[in-house]
Amino acid sequence: MSVKHAVLGLVLERPGYGYELIQRLEERVGGWKPSATAVYPALQLLSRRELIRARETPGGHRGVVWYEATDAGEDHFRAWMDTPSEIAPLREELLLKLAFARVEDLPRLIDLTREQEQACLDRIVELSGPGDVELLAEERHPWPVLAGLLLRDAELDRLRTSIATLQRCRSTMKAALAHELHHTGGGR
Amino acid sequence: MSVKHAVLGLVLERPGYGYELIQRLEERVGGWKPSATAVYPALQLLSRRELIRARETPGGHRGVVWYEATDAGEDHFRAWMDTPSEIAPLREELLLKLAFARVEDLPRLIDLTREQEQACLDRIVELSGPGDVELLAEERHPWPVLAGLLLRDAELDRLRTSIATLQRCRSTMKAALAHELHHTGGGR
Repeated sequence: MSVKHAVLGLVLERPGYGYELIQRLEERVGGWKPSATAVYPALQLLSRRELIRARETPGGHRGVVWYEATDAGEDHFRAWMDTPSEIAPLREELLLKLAFARVEDLPRLIDLTREQEQACLDRIVELSGPGDVELLAEERHPWPVLAGLLLRDAELDRLRTSIATLQRCRSTMKAALAHELHHTGGGR
Repeated sequence: MSVKHAVLGLVLERPGYGYELIQRLEERVGGWKPSATAVYPALQLLSRRELIRARETPGGHRGVVWYEATDAGEDHFRAWMDTPSEIAPLREELLLKLAFARVEDLPRLIDLTREQEQACLDRIVELSGPGDVELLAEERHPWPVLAGLLLRDAELDRLRTSIATLQRCRSTMKAALAHELHHTGGGR
């Protein structure tokens, strides 16, 4: 989990406080679905390591703790940016269920693949705003805009792949179930 | 994270002890890359909630703590199996870097996309054993074998999609960089 690096990156861009950082994180990397509750521990950890520090609150924001990055924080962030990343492990919970399912769980899992497929489709519709594709194609927009579109397209690719995976899982479960019924149902 | 459910699922199938459970987990859901260090806290948590319990060690295994599932553990596991799962959030660290990159970080990130693409290709070769595809096609194998193949194919799909995503990111970064050089390099 790199919520820590994401929060540090946000604070480096400009100082902020807890709730505001949660909103900026959501805007920037919505597909990551960072939980709000992960941001506060990240802020504490970063403070303890002196990668960020609390600063004077600007007027009118009494009692709200603002954070800014330290020089050490900047160095740490740049070193992270520079380091090769691991490929993220596969973390679809439905696949974990598949791995541990007994044959009698398959009818329910077949239903769950349908529900999850629909959830993927809904998310695709949500992400596919009109006109965005042309923005990307034109490619004359500043880098941060392009980065946002790349993240969105990565998420779209991933969702489409998930749908194909879910469909394959469903048809294989149906085949396994049919085979099982054939065996236990008194077929020769 | 559902290491907890995975460990409970393994113990339900048959009792086991820490190190052995780590190995069984790896065999079963290798693509999840569960860290060994996550298994022990999961065992503690499951014990505390009385979903598993320590049992008498079989002869010759003095000092090794074995665990077996309780009835409550079985109920808990079946309820989990029955519940719809969330779509896993996008967790590629390289995409997070992209979201926070400045233009001057792009040359390094372009290199990192190449390294990660190679890592994906290596993993694809590792997973694609000869003959497995026919096994799946034949579909007359028992469910646990099919489940293993489905997980492997899900991982392969995901890796191929990642490669396409990385290639798109790379070409877009190159375009952004060329545009930037054009602007700062004195082009009209």
